[in-house]
Amino acid sequence: MHRRAVTATVAKSTSRTTTTSRLVSLTSRRSFLLTKFSSIPSSRVSVAAYSTAKTVPLTAETYASKVQRDPRYKKLTASDLEFFKLVLPGNSIITDKDDLDFYNEDWMRKYKGQSQLVLKPKTVEQVSQIVKYCNQEKLAVVPQGGNTGLVGGSNPVFDEIILSLSSMNEIRSFDEASGILKVDAGVILETADQYLAERGFIFPLDLGAKGSCQIGGNVACNAGGLRLLKYGSLHGSVLGLEVVLPDGTIYDSMHSLRKDNTGYDLKQLFIGSEGTLGVITGVSILCPSRPQANNVAFLAVKDYETVTKVFNECKKELSEILSAFEFMDLNSQKLTQQHLGVEQHPIESGEYPFYILIETSGSNKEHDDEKLETFLGNAMENGLVEDGIIAQDESQIQSLWSWRESIPEASTMNGGVYKYDVSIPLKDLYNLVEACNVELDKAGIVDFEDASKPVVSAIGYGHIGDGNLHLNVCVRQYSKEIEKVLEPFVYEWISEKKGSISAEHGLGFQKKNYIGYSKNDQEISMIKSIKNHFDPEGIMNPYKYV
Amino acid sequence: MHRRAVTATVAKSTSRTTTTSRLVSLTSRRSFLLTKFSSIPSSRVSVAAYSTAKTVPLTAETYASKVQRDPRYKKLTASDLEFFKLVLPGNSIITDKDDLDFYNEDWMRKYKGQSQLVLKPKTVEQVSQIVKYCNQEKLAVVPQGGNTGLVGGSNPVFDEIILSLSSMNEIRSFDEASGILKVDAGVILETADQYLAERGFIFPLDLGAKGSCQIGGNVACNAGGLRLLKYGSLHGSVLGLEVVLPDGTIYDSMHSLRKDNTGYDLKQLFIGSEGTLGVITGVSILCPSRPQANNVAFLAVKDYETVTKVFNECKKELSEILSAFEFMDLNSQKLTQQHLGVEQHPIESGEYPFYILIETSGSNKEHDDEKLETFLGNAMENGLVEDGIIAQDESQIQSLWSWRESIPEASTMNGGVYKYDVSIPLKDLYNLVEACNVELDKAGIVDFEDASKPVVSAIGYGHIGDGNLHLNVCVRQYSKEIEKVLEPFVYEWISEKKGSISAEHGLGFQKKNYIGYSKNDQEISMIKSIKNHFDPEGIMNPYKYV
Repeated sequence: MHRRAVTATVAKSTSRTTTTSRLVSLTSRRSFLLTKFSSIPSSRVSVAAYSTAKTVPLTAETYASKVQRDPRYKKLTASDLEFFKLVLPGNSIITDKDDLDFYNEDWMRKYKGQSQLVLKPKTVEQVSQIVKYCNQEKLAVVPQGGNTGLVGGSNPVFDEIILSLSSMNEIRSFDEASGILKVDAGVILETADQYLAERGFIFPLDLGAKGSCQIGGNVACNAGGLRLLKYGSLHGSVLGLEVVLPDGTIYDSMHSLRKDNTGYDLKQLFIGSEGTLGVITGVSILCPSRPQANNVAFLAVKDYETVTKVFNECKKELSEILSAFEFMDLNSQKLTQQHLGVEQHPIESGEYPFYILIETSGSNKEHDDEKLETFLGNAMENGLVEDGIIAQDESQIQSLWSWRESIPEASTMNGGVYKYDVSIPLKDLYNLVEACNVELDKAGIVDFEDASKPVVSAIGYGHIGDGNLHLNVCVRQYSKEIEKVLEPFVYEWISEKKGSISAEHGLGFQKKNYIGYSKNDQEISMIKSIKNHFDPEGIMNPYKYV
Repeated sequence: MHRRAVTATVAKSTSRTTTTSRLVSLTSRRSFLLTKFSSIPSSRVSVAAYSTAKTVPLTAETYASKVQRDPRYKKLTASDLEFFKLVLPGNSIITDKDDLDFYNEDWMRKYKGQSQLVLKPKTVEQVSQIVKYCNQEKLAVVPQGGNTGLVGGSNPVFDEIILSLSSMNEIRSFDEASGILKVDAGVILETADQYLAERGFIFPLDLGAKGSCQIGGNVACNAGGLRLLKYGSLHGSVLGLEVVLPDGTIYDSMHSLRKDNTGYDLKQLFIGSEGTLGVITGVSILCPSRPQANNVAFLAVKDYETVTKVFNECKKELSEILSAFEFMDLNSQKLTQQHLGVEQHPIESGEYPFYILIETSGSNKEHDDEKLETFLGNAMENGLVEDGIIAQDESQIQSLWSWRESIPEASTMNGGVYKYDVSIPLKDLYNLVEACNVELDKAGIVDFEDASKPVVSAIGYGHIGDGNLHLNVCVRQYSKEIEKVLEPFVYEWISEKKGSISAEHGLGFQKKNYIGYSKNDQEISMIKSIKNHFDPEGIMNPYKYV
């Protein structure tokens, strides 16, 4: 079922094909196109899927030496519950132990809190009443969106109350003249994008977890994602926010137009603040027109240096239509193939050390095809590309993307994953993955096949276009031993290359103690001072961030 | 000298040409192109030129009823001067009265301070020493870049010390792999762009004052400019800043990579803070590849509604290559023609109520030409465009741009200008200009020809692509009478349409008291609280902003 019936590949030197000359001469444009390509069943491409670990250890126990419950926070009482029941209707309060697990645990099954209460308000006024009460009573709060984070930022560490935005999920308005979309924080990213697609627009953010993650959470974490290369960061596209501040007051800049230079741009503070400065309840964002032409090419190359060379050529030749440039190493593709359960990788001519996914988006299909094919022709001629294919229709585009988007899930399939998400100068980017595997090997704890070793492999993939590497250390179980090999080794390595220890995943619980590797003392002192300015009682998402 | 020898225009219905059919059928692509077009001498297109008013009234006198000197600020003493002489070498201190005028006055000749001291530090350490001393001694400070602002933000109101960044003008570094440029705050925008052009890159900001304005000032004011449509706002492209805070400490995030999600994005607070939170001394910014193909078309249309229709078509058809969409009304072009001293407007077939400048930037000249010409052909066929021309080479592109970029200067040529820079929903945008002229006419004070009337005309132009109108009320002299007709009328009108009273020029001195028209009480209270958090002594750029 997963085998392709007919394929036309862009191969350079395999006995199976003789397409080389066609590529170089570019005489027959259609020869590039994949004529048939079976899709991956979409049910397999949901990021909300849990990893295979049976139980999740309590964060408070795993990290007992690093973190203790802060006694200044009050423990939940019956009278607190009474208050919340007055504010919220019946089914918006969760106290059942089994139901709580879903909110207490992260999807990697690495972190688990002990919250006894999940609140699911439906309006900003309810959020305001809840937060105001918590501030007065010194009850700690964890705001939670889709709970798809990767650094334990949206789960409690101890008994913090979970404030889930899931029930605030209305699209508030969309203005076709300006492209301004206003939504509740709990709207799922994919829902918003589908709504926009029907109107000829696109959400300026896309990521693997789009079927589960919520826009409020995306903004709180300053999610970067797959198309930052084309649409830029949320700091540029978010126009206004509605935020409940730690004292319960409502900050509302949802009225902002595309350009508004009156006063400090306060909303920026909340973008990437990971719930430590307030609860984002509404988002206004500028959405571009949906590209009318999309192409995806999947290429195989011989080494990492060639990946960067292909990228440089891409920037020059594809320029304004280049919307994504993703790279993946061989082991990431092997795991993904196992996870997807398909017999054949899109590149059929053999295994290659590195793969590249290139996406173009533009307004004129013919022009874009010509640009992409000229580029690929040159890349083949210059010996940069070993093999490659171009998707021919939307379902093939989705299929090729699934080989990139499914990696995060595939990386947890053997038990779990230690995730690092870093920015490093391009030339050094992949060296980190290699250095990690060397360290793990020195410790004798890594083997891709041997199930008696705790680590499967360190794999690397990510957004070359943004200098952003995802280093995933795929493990058969979480252990102190592995963690000791990895940390602070990884952070020190990044710091030495003047990189960032969090390109897009945030700090959360995982990196709280490592911010000093990316920020200087003055910056950290200002961050702490801003936190104290907005949240003097420290009730918002404690034990994390700074 | 300014006449064009040969032109080929895109005209619909003039007796002079018979090009209509060619346009509609699109059989001869080259027929669109202007074959010769004399350039405007570049010396006339410098925005640093002063307006024609002889003397500039003191701000403190003009606005005596609105603002008084705050007695908490110390007056400059001889011992203060001694200290500054120790910090700075001889020629970095200006105290001569005539030399001070250049820094005390704004280029519109509307605002004038009474500073007795200009300091021109060369290093961030010197800035730090100066600011620390001023904070201790309670000496008020005005940071000043190129002094090209439009709201009196960079000039003192009373005797504030002027801290000019002009001598901090080195390009620090440029990395071709990532496109990251690091500069001193005093580097002139055009200098940086020329430096980048030689390396195949472009500065992601462009504005009429580029020959004089400084990058630090651009960032402090969150300048929007002509190509925001393509490259987005500085909130998205600035990666890091070096800022001397009001207590003299140095905040330095110049090390940031393209993606860095560690901690609050503090630099954002300084973008658009107009010197009220600290002195920007260094800027790190992401610069895109320079487009290899540029086109500019200049069109004439019959009414404002058609301007918006052409824009909608443009967004659809030109999409990723559309880099600017500017509109100008007839009076703005009449004044510009007088100011440039040329006999012939680019559109020769007659006067039209509105003009549009469209710029495309892309990687493939042939593709871009085809897209633009298809678009123009359709626009002619649908009766949207009355007449139009396309520049054929770089010098013609510059010439056409000068008809847009020279408007700010042209608007002051009769004596002065009241400038309003607003965001309003597109459909209402131009109504504001018409409403203003009605008000001025009711007061009997406006006439384009009659020099006995104080007002020449309210004119409108700006960045349709961003919903941003520049309303310029061109006057023969500044007067209380005019101001009373305009304010708060303009602000109330904007507030009613839920617009912003400052799209890109900032608040400065001019709009300090009007922020309430664009921001709600909670926002203003948070802004004031942030100001107090960073600058408890209030020494940075007082009497302005909030």
